[in-house]
Amino acid sequence: MLILKKDDIKKCFTMRDAIEADKEALEIYSEGKAKVPLRTNIDIDEKNGQNLYMPAYVGGNQAAAGLKIVSVYPDNISKGLPSVPATVITLDADTGELGAVIEGTYLTQLRTGAVQGAATELLARKDAKVGALIGTGGQAATQLEAMIEVRDLEEIRIFDIDFSRAKKFAELMADKFNKNIYPCQTAKECVENADIITTVTTSKRATFNDEWVKPGAHINGIGAYTPEMCEIPCETIKRAKTIVFDTLDGVWQEAGDFIQPLNKGEISKDMITGELGQLVAGKIKGRTSDDEITIFKTVGTAVLDVYIADKIVKKAQANGYGHEFELN
Amino acid sequence: MLILKKDDIKKCFTMRDAIEADKEALEIYSEGKAKVPLRTNIDIDEKNGQNLYMPAYVGGNQAAAGLKIVSVYPDNISKGLPSVPATVITLDADTGELGAVIEGTYLTQLRTGAVQGAATELLARKDAKVGALIGTGGQAATQLEAMIEVRDLEEIRIFDIDFSRAKKFAELMADKFNKNIYPCQTAKECVENADIITTVTTSKRATFNDEWVKPGAHINGIGAYTPEMCEIPCETIKRAKTIVFDTLDGVWQEAGDFIQPLNKGEISKDMITGELGQLVAGKIKGRTSDDEITIFKTVGTAVLDVYIADKIVKKAQANGYGHEFELN
Repeated sequence: MLILKKDDIKKCFTMRDAIEADKEALEIYSEGKAKVPLRTNIDIDEKNGQNLYMPAYVGGNQAAAGLKIVSVYPDNISKGLPSVPATVITLDADTGELGAVIEGTYLTQLRTGAVQGAATELLARKDAKVGALIGTGGQAATQLEAMIEVRDLEEIRIFDIDFSRAKKFAELMADKFNKNIYPCQTAKECVENADIITTVTTSKRATFNDEWVKPGAHINGIGAYTPEMCEIPCETIKRAKTIVFDTLDGVWQEAGDFIQPLNKGEISKDMITGELGQLVAGKIKGRTSDDEITIFKTVGTAVLDVYIADKIVKKAQANGYGHEFELN
Repeated sequence: MLILKKDDIKKCFTMRDAIEADKEALEIYSEGKAKVPLRTNIDIDEKNGQNLYMPAYVGGNQAAAGLKIVSVYPDNISKGLPSVPATVITLDADTGELGAVIEGTYLTQLRTGAVQGAATELLARKDAKVGALIGTGGQAATQLEAMIEVRDLEEIRIFDIDFSRAKKFAELMADKFNKNIYPCQTAKECVENADIITTVTTSKRATFNDEWVKPGAHINGIGAYTPEMCEIPCETIKRAKTIVFDTLDGVWQEAGDFIQPLNKGEISKDMITGELGQLVAGKIKGRTSDDEITIFKTVGTAVLDVYIADKIVKKAQANGYGHEFELN
């Protein structure tokens, strides 16, 4: 068994590695070679908590197996503990033996940033210069990192409903990436004229207005992972020419920005171009003109966790990172 | 995270500890305070393998959470690897954080031996002197150990369809436990006049004949964990006065010795006295006379794995066993 902490992942696995891994994982998924059973949720009312078990198997030449375990314990915050602790366990796909135990919070941030990076790389205008990031929570830093990885951005604007948070985050990121990253007082200021708009919040209504979105912009909807949540305005969905999901099943089950207008009859399922894995494989077309709006929506899948975990393990082993431990 | 190897478990957790833990776990289960979602099976046809994920939550004052991961890879044998590798992961029930990673094969043997020990302790005649054990596979040693733990046996007879295996096993166990343990050429020789009969095989027909079973005997059906398998003769089931299952749901779903005669109309569900947890709690009666036949049937449940794992972790921590490892 290999044990990998957050720092071990950081040392051996780059955002570029993660983007390539996510592309491969979703391509395999879209080809029907992955198995993702229903997530098992155990509600623990007496502790005000929830344990979520998300196993997956990703087939093909580089098969990967395992599960992510995520707990949701809001009361942890008052104890100074993470409220959503996560761990990823991998199994050796060839033998079923325990492969690795991996810190899951950073892995989740990495794969979620990377899936946006993959979509932005394939859908945004090549000459994109201005990025907009809405939301500065736990998932924001890797979102920013992924945008910078795939496009040569000259400025990135940050918006948060709490300006002081946006300011602090922007300063931290400007320092880290040595880029022109600055906070905005309003969402309008952040989004207007941006080439890439990434929204990563738990908002229950659109985080920006459609009229602020310029022709040619690419939008990433990363938050809004329940039917009650919503980040992308319905008008922008209707205006977009190309709309890509990480998984059709997942988004139609979980993402309020799409479920709500579908239920109201404002959009239809055939407006969706297809899955990111199909785009990676060249089975569907991406952007066809510099003026069109493109949208990517993700709610995540254990396929990403398990596949990227396997890649991280292989790279860590090749480079001698992490701790090997014999259980038997 | 605490990491516990097989030897760590052996050093700090006795069969008696395991019997008490199993009793508590099943009592909590029978009180309706445990949650055991459906097991998630992922068939991996391309590797001739299967990954099984078995999460559980055991509530109450000493709550425990986690899952057992078991893989079934028959081809591992030719690679010199275990064909059914297993690992148990515990979560801190109060915070949802990763608790421990525990070698699962020995833990499974221990909890399966212990559940028989608990049943034998509560159901067999107090003056039982002769034990019979049918089957000498991976689960046999802890079955023997549990029988010896709960009754002062003067002799234990071993039967296996392969006599040389029975002989080897008996020698090993006689050495280990310093008891009169010997192999038998026939199942009849093994079972006749035995006070406790424990059968732990994957047989598809009864492993002994009803007429060999003496009045007052207690029988443990430990193998036969699929509807196709069968160990206990139907006549003996009909003759028994007290029949106890580890879980009613589990046995009626999985155990051929009971499902097959039920489907043929030879037995009825109301012939079952109840669950072991109810017996532990004193909610149902056990043996009522020295002459009656009693039967215990188990197919296992993740409740046992997760609860005993939590107990092992607590005892290991109290005694400084295992390896602590910080993942963050």
